[in-house]
Amino acid sequence: MDTKVLTRQPSKKQLNTPVKVAVAQGDGIGPEIMKATLRILEAAGANIEPEFIELGEKVYLSGNTSGIDANAWDAIRNNKIIFKAPITTPQGKGYKSLNVTLRKSLGLFANVRPVTALHPFVPTHFPNMDVVIIRENEEDLYAGIEHRQTQDVYQCLKLITRPGCERIVRYAFEYAKAFGRKKVTCMVKDNIMKITDGLFHTVFDEIAKEYPEIENDVQIIDIGSARLAAKPEQYDVIVTANLYGDIISDIAAEIGGSVGMCGSANIGKNVAMFEAIHGSAPDISGQGIANPSGLINAAVAMLAHIGQSEIGDKVKNAWLTTLEEGYHTADIYQEGISLKKVGAQEFANQVISNL
Amino acid sequence: MDTKVLTRQPSKKQLNTPVKVAVAQGDGIGPEIMKATLRILEAAGANIEPEFIELGEKVYLSGNTSGIDANAWDAIRNNKIIFKAPITTPQGKGYKSLNVTLRKSLGLFANVRPVTALHPFVPTHFPNMDVVIIRENEEDLYAGIEHRQTQDVYQCLKLITRPGCERIVRYAFEYAKAFGRKKVTCMVKDNIMKITDGLFHTVFDEIAKEYPEIENDVQIIDIGSARLAAKPEQYDVIVTANLYGDIISDIAAEIGGSVGMCGSANIGKNVAMFEAIHGSAPDISGQGIANPSGLINAAVAMLAHIGQSEIGDKVKNAWLTTLEEGYHTADIYQEGISLKKVGAQEFANQVISNL
Ligand SMILES: CC(C)[C@H](C(=O)O)[C@@H](O)C(=O)O
Ligand SMILES: CC(C)[C@H](C(=O)O)[C@@H](O)C(=O)O
Repeated sequence: MDTKVLTRQPSKKQLNTPVKVAVAQGDGIGPEIMKATLRILEAAGANIEPEFIELGEKVYLSGNTSGIDANAWDAIRNNKIIFKAPITTPQGKGYKSLNVTLRKSLGLFANVRPVTALHPFVPTHFPNMDVVIIRENEEDLYAGIEHRQTQDVYQCLKLITRPGCERIVRYAFEYAKAFGRKKVTCMVKDNIMKITDGLFHTVFDEIAKEYPEIENDVQIIDIGSARLAAKPEQYDVIVTANLYGDIISDIAAEIGGSVGMCGSANIGKNVAMFEAIHGSAPDISGQGIANPSGLINAAVAMLAHIGQSEIGDKVKNAWLTTLEEGYHTADIYQEGISLKKVGAQEFANQVISNL
Repeated sequence: MDTKVLTRQPSKKQLNTPVKVAVAQGDGIGPEIMKATLRILEAAGANIEPEFIELGEKVYLSGNTSGIDANAWDAIRNNKIIFKAPITTPQGKGYKSLNVTLRKSLGLFANVRPVTALHPFVPTHFPNMDVVIIRENEEDLYAGIEHRQTQDVYQCLKLITRPGCERIVRYAFEYAKAFGRKKVTCMVKDNIMKITDGLFHTVFDEIAKEYPEIENDVQIIDIGSARLAAKPEQYDVIVTANLYGDIISDIAAEIGGSVGMCGSANIGKNVAMFEAIHGSAPDISGQGIANPSGLINAAVAMLAHIGQSEIGDKVKNAWLTTLEEGYHTADIYQEGISLKKVGAQEFANQVISNL
């Protein structure tokens, strides 16, 4: 596998010129957390040049049901790196999920979602959890093939392909190898879906053999996600299909502290997209109280990907220090643990002062 | 809705004659936990007459890939009540899941799985959790429509019908009403599956209107199951599609103490089946150490269903007393909390002495 898929190492020349990044400011709390994060990146000396693109609610409501316009596509294709705040898809059958469109159109086959407990600064029942969920990002029920067969019968197609399985399973093992992880667990429901999930399992077993130094294990998704919820510290890297990954990554993030804390990388052969795992939270938008941590972590992953991991580490450490100092946004704030309840920009100021 | 679907009330005549029940002793730990449970039921004076049926591993391995033979079908059709220990389905694409076959062939549309914390006797992070998961039991990806389209492309069909949605959603609200529950939460992924999960959501909204006294709420399955895992005490009754229900019921059970503690009712218009939610655990079978609690709880649900809820309550209370006394099987046993580590039969003896 092309290791560039794991980390895109810049050439000497690239090191001197800033990396252009397509930046989508998002909807709801998107713009405020993006502002906070970009301020931190600038202060940290990240060598990037944002090119702002328009996607999401405004585009949807202009009549474009894909939520993304031609200019945005151009910027994405040219820059190959997207940094994206959460967006709002309007209710209604006509609107296609922009997230899914981007992932599928750009071949972003791997969705990488690390969750590490930060107890006691961010309280959790599971202080030792440190898990990375690697979610297949293009296939499964997300292929979007759905129809009404008769008045009363509706169908959706779950699609699993051998190349799709091979790509994601190999990515998971390469990831484990690159980051010194010890074990990869595969989760499927192949006692029921013997053909589709059975294929995922078969491919996992085949590829696991090529990595004898990494432990491997297959669990049925029902009891696997139950054990993840009850004893997350037992897991290291988990690789799974799209929908299961969607569910268990939210579970891991929430029991590890909050879905508001986690960032994700959507990795493809040519393009990569970095985003928070949470939504646009329209209910609290505009109040300045949103938590930028998910997007900050997405930015850290992006910096590592474009070969600026030293700056990424700097940001990560300043962020950790801020949490340790007890500066918390309202979602994390807890009497007795936190020192000060801060808004998105104040939180960013504190991160900046810790750089 | 026919309230008999909730509880089958016996006629006067039936009260005097024992209720015939088709009993499957199962595989792995099945026979030992069934023996323990039947001993308790007999001691409690349950007015039932077991008719033992053959299903599972032995039948599969005799060459019958359905795992169930004609005699068993007859007994089930005559008795209309099945009490079933976990069975083992052999590995291999040829063998059909017996659980699914029974649920689908007998129209057991509702799978009811209550989880109540018993902290501190069974330790959990969530002492106040008390949730009932009502899982659609016949449709979804469990319809078993799967095929290999080309060498590399595999498909599985997710099937959602309006009558299927109506039946399960109405059941959930009727259940809430009958048992004094305050809120029903629906979990779907209709931001992606707008047509199939969208239908489930639409039907939920329609039927919820008929029950204004019961609160209702719809959550996306990713964040819904994450919140369930992090704060289960926020949920009351959850209604959801088959696969989601499979996953979240194991999660609820495991974080509430153990999947080993929970029983379930599979309810149809004519037939009902009661079983533990866990599997046949071949790794510990024959050692006498298995936990019969899941099956005991399934029996309690069965007794309520056949109009013997007083006896069911007696069993339940004796079981609770046993746990409070600190008699625990190995899976639950914990130094400092438990008094004595017991096997399945010793555990049953203690329950019997508490009747
Ligand atoms: C918003 C939604 C389409 C998306 C998904 O289902 O993948 C989100 O839940 C996520 O996990 O990134
Ligand atoms: C054994 C398996 C077929 C079954 C299911 O998936 O429904 C089990 O996990 C359950 O939850 O009863």
